[in-house]
Amino acid sequence: MNFRTDLALERCENLDKKSLEGVDMNVVEEEGATITRIEVLSETGEKTVGKPVGRYVTVEVAPFAVHAQFIDDSLDALAKEIRRIIPREGSVLVAGLGNMRITPDALGPKCASMIFAKRHITGELLRSTGLSGLRCVSAVATGVTGETGAEAGEIIKGVVRTVKPDFVITVDALAARNVGRLGRTIQMCDTGIVPGSGVGNSRQEISKKTIGVPVISIGVPTVVDAATLIMDCTGNENAVSDGAENMMVTPREIDLMIERASKAISLAINCALQPDITPEDMLILTS
Amino acid sequence: MNFRTDLALERCENLDKKSLEGVDMNVVEEEGATITRIEVLSETGEKTVGKPVGRYVTVEVAPFAVHAQFIDDSLDALAKEIRRIIPREGSVLVAGLGNMRITPDALGPKCASMIFAKRHITGELLRSTGLSGLRCVSAVATGVTGETGAEAGEIIKGVVRTVKPDFVITVDALAARNVGRLGRTIQMCDTGIVPGSGVGNSRQEISKKTIGVPVISIGVPTVVDAATLIMDCTGNENAVSDGAENMMVTPREIDLMIERASKAISLAINCALQPDITPEDMLILTS
Amino acid sequence: MNFRTDLALERCENLDKKSLEGVDMNVVEEEGATITRIEVLSETGEKTVGKPVGRYVTVEVAPFAVHAQFIDDSLDALAKEIRRIIPREGSVLVAGLGNMRITPDALGPKCASMIFAKRHITGELLRSTGLSGLRCVSAVATGVTGETGAEAGEIIKGVVRTVKPDFVITVDALAARNVGRLGRTIQMCDTGIVPGSGVGNSRQEISKKTIGVPVISIGVPTVVDAATLIMDCTGNENAVSDGAENMMVTPREIDLMIERASKAISLAINCALQPDITPEDMLILTS
Amino acid sequence: MNFRTDLALERCENLDKKSLEGVDMNVVEEEGATITRIEVLSETGEKTVGKPVGRYVTVEVAPFAVHAQFIDDSLDALAKEIRRIIPREGSVLVAGLGNMRITPDALGPKCASMIFAKRHITGELLRSTGLSGLRCVSAVATGVTGETGAEAGEIIKGVVRTVKPDFVITVDALAARNVGRLGRTIQMCDTGIVPGSGVGNSRQEISKKTIGVPVISIGVPTVVDAATLIMDCTGNENAVSDGAENMMVTPREIDLMIERASKAISLAINCALQPDITPEDMLILTS
Repeated sequence: MNFRTDLALERCENLDKKSLEGVDMNVVEEEGATITRIEVLSETGEKTVGKPVGRYVTVEVAPFAVHAQFIDDSLDALAKEIRRIIPREGSVLVAGLGNMRITPDALGPKCASMIFAKRHITGELLRSTGLSGLRCVSAVATGVTGETGAEAGEIIKGVVRTVKPDFVITVDALAARNVGRLGRTIQMCDTGIVPGSGVGNSRQEISKKTIGVPVISIGVPTVVDAATLIMDCTGNENAVSDGAENMMVTPREIDLMIERASKAISLAINCALQPDITPEDMLILTS
Repeated sequence: MNFRTDLALERCENLDKKSLEGVDMNVVEEEGATITRIEVLSETGEKTVGKPVGRYVTVEVAPFAVHAQFIDDSLDALAKEIRRIIPREGSVLVAGLGNMRITPDALGPKCASMIFAKRHITGELLRSTGLSGLRCVSAVATGVTGETGAEAGEIIKGVVRTVKPDFVITVDALAARNVGRLGRTIQMCDTGIVPGSGVGNSRQEISKKTIGVPVISIGVPTVVDAATLIMDCTGNENAVSDGAENMMVTPREIDLMIERASKAISLAINCALQPDITPEDMLILTS
Repeated sequence: MNFRTDLALERCENLDKKSLEGVDMNVVEEEGATITRIEVLSETGEKTVGKPVGRYVTVEVAPFAVHAQFIDDSLDALAKEIRRIIPREGSVLVAGLGNMRITPDALGPKCASMIFAKRHITGELLRSTGLSGLRCVSAVATGVTGETGAEAGEIIKGVVRTVKPDFVITVDALAARNVGRLGRTIQMCDTGIVPGSGVGNSRQEISKKTIGVPVISIGVPTVVDAATLIMDCTGNENAVSDGAENMMVTPREIDLMIERASKAISLAINCALQPDITPEDMLILTS
Repeated sequence: MNFRTDLALERCENLDKKSLEGVDMNVVEEEGATITRIEVLSETGEKTVGKPVGRYVTVEVAPFAVHAQFIDDSLDALAKEIRRIIPREGSVLVAGLGNMRITPDALGPKCASMIFAKRHITGELLRSTGLSGLRCVSAVATGVTGETGAEAGEIIKGVVRTVKPDFVITVDALAARNVGRLGRTIQMCDTGIVPGSGVGNSRQEISKKTIGVPVISIGVPTVVDAATLIMDCTGNENAVSDGAENMMVTPREIDLMIERASKAISLAINCALQPDITPEDMLILTS
């Protein structure tokens, strides 16, 4: 069935071994999180998952809208997975994608604004502030094409040329198939992103191929495509009424979900990038 | 079927004459708008419509998210209907209900912030600024119970006691049954409002009975209850999956819809209240 | 000299014993804070201090814009002083005064939005969430007269009538005489407030006399009146140039100062009101 | 005297002919505006004006905070001057500089968000929407170095490389010497900008030399440096007290001033770039 999702996990679940040819998948239960690691290995796997060869890691935690604690086992699990998927060394540009004015789409820009981005502090100042071990980090929000006239990919590619990070982390709100995954699932991958692809509004790909440096993408599903929800409930692709194709489904408490998910994701990225700073200190430094 | 809607219109459509006992309904096509006037006349009518005895007027215009023009025939139609349903004279408090941080729920507070509320300008100052013919208007946003610890109705009732308006206009985002009505339908009624009733999250009633002065309610549907959409597509009340009951369906371009609907509704209210000021001047005075 | 300030402390400093007739003043150094307690005892004292008979406590801490730590000795000192000046028992309404859209004036509404206001949670729900020992708290932002058409005092008085708190805490940005006091001085008093009086733009008094219940006012100076700064530098009241009388002086890093002061003040109020919750838990509950 | 200002006009006024060697200056009164054109012609002129060889045009209009009308003679005058100083043809990137969270510094990002930036609409879509005669425009807000870790100049230079505009327009809040000029003076120049130079916080130059394409800078003074105001009032450079050097002076009604100045400047830029669209239509298209 032609459902929409940005989650590799939702493409693979319920498939038998044979259908998963070209895909390697394993699930680990950790303190505070369930971690699913999917690796797309071949062209066959690409077709199954609908995503290019590469690594896709999903971390499932307690729902952000319900669970208010920021510093706990699930933060550790999340930061550890981010550290595993990003390059060990080198400078980084964190790019927040999405529309600040649409609550479920504000995850990216909100995260970007909480990234501990101190690339501009250098030399003596860095030493005197006791930050000399810092990894070099910068952060931007790309804005929305309808307002900037430019694709997110163009903005990132341009900034990469002058700021010269060794790699890029993108943060974006995603679409899931299953409402139960909203606001509690974090997907990260090493193949970049095609923004909007989960909701059928594809923009320019943002990946090593287009940007020139590795792109790690981190996202949290915050909406379900209305047509997908209807198809899932009816089992019928033709049940989708007129008008529903431009609709999205989102939780009522979306403000709380976005507020907390942005804090948790940005804190996890900050901790993954700066392992010498404790989560408690990082929370204060970015408040 | 047990669908949810805040629109009297959606309760009455598709009913035959007999089922509409106790309800008076007529539709008028005007330049730029379709106007449906429903009057609930009796207890029987109350059961059918699910709303108390009183007048319910629906104005359907071109979709706010598509149609950028503010000053046109549909503004005239809207302002005229508002003028018909509010008391001819007397001071007014406009109260914006809803959550500023959830895009589809921000209609009320956004409208309140654009109301031309000059009650504090009096006496000589009023004369010297050439505003002496103004109706006395005040405006508040009630905030959200989860953050204030108080019901919207308590805030309004309190402010009414000190500010002493002759009547109240509430503005709120509503829930519709039909996605095609989102962002293009304005309902106004003279019976007040039970905030959240359209999405099954009822709060204290705001009406003449509870507040002490007449309450005119104006609203625009911006969401459909997810369970309602699924029931409508499946024809089955039991098709609604777990989790979907706390979900809402909203257009992707919800930011644009809210931005324009707030401007249009606040402009129509301002023009209805101050007929001596042209729409063009009012748009500038509140920009 | 006719300088403007909202701080009782700045009216009393540099005065000799004789000039302080009717005023009791003492200074205590505590871990993390300097605390000055001023009591206005008589009409003579009222003239000197320019404020009514009552208690005025000033807590001076490390500058909020520089010092990022929220939970430390200065928080303890601040919460302790708030606890000393508010009634020991009873429900409370916290009212944030000021204009959200003017950075140095946004302290009040920002604080109000971070108050742990759970008055609406009652009965079984309160017990089941483990919050049964909570003091009953509500919180509102009054908005700005130019936009609401109503005085802050009218809004508060109205809400007090329906929400029925035993006392009110107002939070507002203040004006100091001395730029060195901005963003590091917290004044609290038990006589209420005349909003804007420090900058010559007086509004209706908010006090037990006008509201009907005790009013504790908490404020932080964030601006200096430009005319006052010029007089202080020139020693000449007539040196103030045209246009400067409607100007305010504020630090360049005012965004950081307001962001942190709002967090610190709201956390201190929350901890003072709910002594059973640790500061660490409170920070998480209101994030 | 060592006063700070971003306005070429304030460097030149009160100088006699001889002191203006290397500077060409003339003043024109137009309907709704006073226009001063200064041309720096030589190195001698550069020293006098403190700015590089090039054209500096100042348009003085009625104060934005007082005057609410957007479409009038002063808009015409402003748009005409912008059209004179920008290249006649070619695509453009409008870059808003400054900090959205500090009211007097929010002019740049607010303007950028109201620019009619439709570069992404091309080909058939452009024809079908009736916009085929549009100049190709994109718009970004650069963010603040303290949050992004990157200089505004780096962001702009990068975006220029991928978006490839023929020239850049920057919009920024400026510092004046004279409080009477705040919120009513628009300076534009063809030599680019050194952000923050007017308040002694210089960042990387943004000009043809650093960016690679012509940079037109447009700005409105919204603050006076506190030290400059004190020096002007005392006539004494040493009168500036400790702490005042990091202070800025700004009008109390700064929210209104910024709100209206952003609308007026963005409308004037939009009209200058798209002469085929009337100001009335442009106002609607960008609302």
